[in-house]
Amino acid sequence: MLIRRPEDVPPITYKNGVQKRVVLGPQQGAPTFVLRTIDVPPGEASPWHKHDWEHEMFVLAGEGMAITEDGERPTKCGDAVLVPPNEMHSFKNTGTDTFRFICLVPTRGEDNP
Amino acid sequence: MLIRRPEDVPPITYKNGVQKRVVLGPQQGAPTFVLRTIDVPPGEASPWHKHDWEHEMFVLAGEGMAITEDGERPTKCGDAVLVPPNEMHSFKNTGTDTFRFICLVPTRGEDNP
Repeated sequence: MLIRRPEDVPPITYKNGVQKRVVLGPQQGAPTFVLRTIDVPPGEASPWHKHDWEHEMFVLAGEGMAITEDGERPTKCGDAVLVPPNEMHSFKNTGTDTFRFICLVPTRGEDNP
Repeated sequence: MLIRRPEDVPPITYKNGVQKRVVLGPQQGAPTFVLRTIDVPPGEASPWHKHDWEHEMFVLAGEGMAITEDGERPTKCGDAVLVPPNEMHSFKNTGTDTFRFICLVPTRGEDNP
């Protein structure tokens, strides 16, 4: 068994300040899917994109907007969110604090599993 | 996209009062893995068992003990926990409030996906 605090995992930081931490995945002994945390700074967003695998997410802190081709929906701490395969999506921080969520993907969906 | 609050999902309640909610999975359009929440009442525990798939977990509230054949380790809100395949495990609530965690499994690991 492995117990990790996300804050102890070195982040991958993107140009807009979004940070990803790959917390649990194949490198830790998990064969099927990968648990990452994503931190979105106020005013910033994750990329507008799609892929043929799902996201299963859980919002840990802050508030934001879940954006799809069907429109925008507010999401906040305590929400579970499913992005099904092949759906365009982006998550924007609309609050004043960090918008942090867990985001899981199948192993093939993570560049740094 | 689907946004759900776990508290809006009807629970499956076991004899010892442990409750499981299947929040995101194949019935919601996710093909690969299933996001459940588990609530363990004070003094109670999840079953001592093993299986050939992994658990990826994230503790949302409370505190407990992660028990394996190698011993016991305390775990609390904010911890990510990996139980690799084929490892005996149980999670016991050692606090005074509900011990709540997210627990993900591959689709074949959930009876009510």
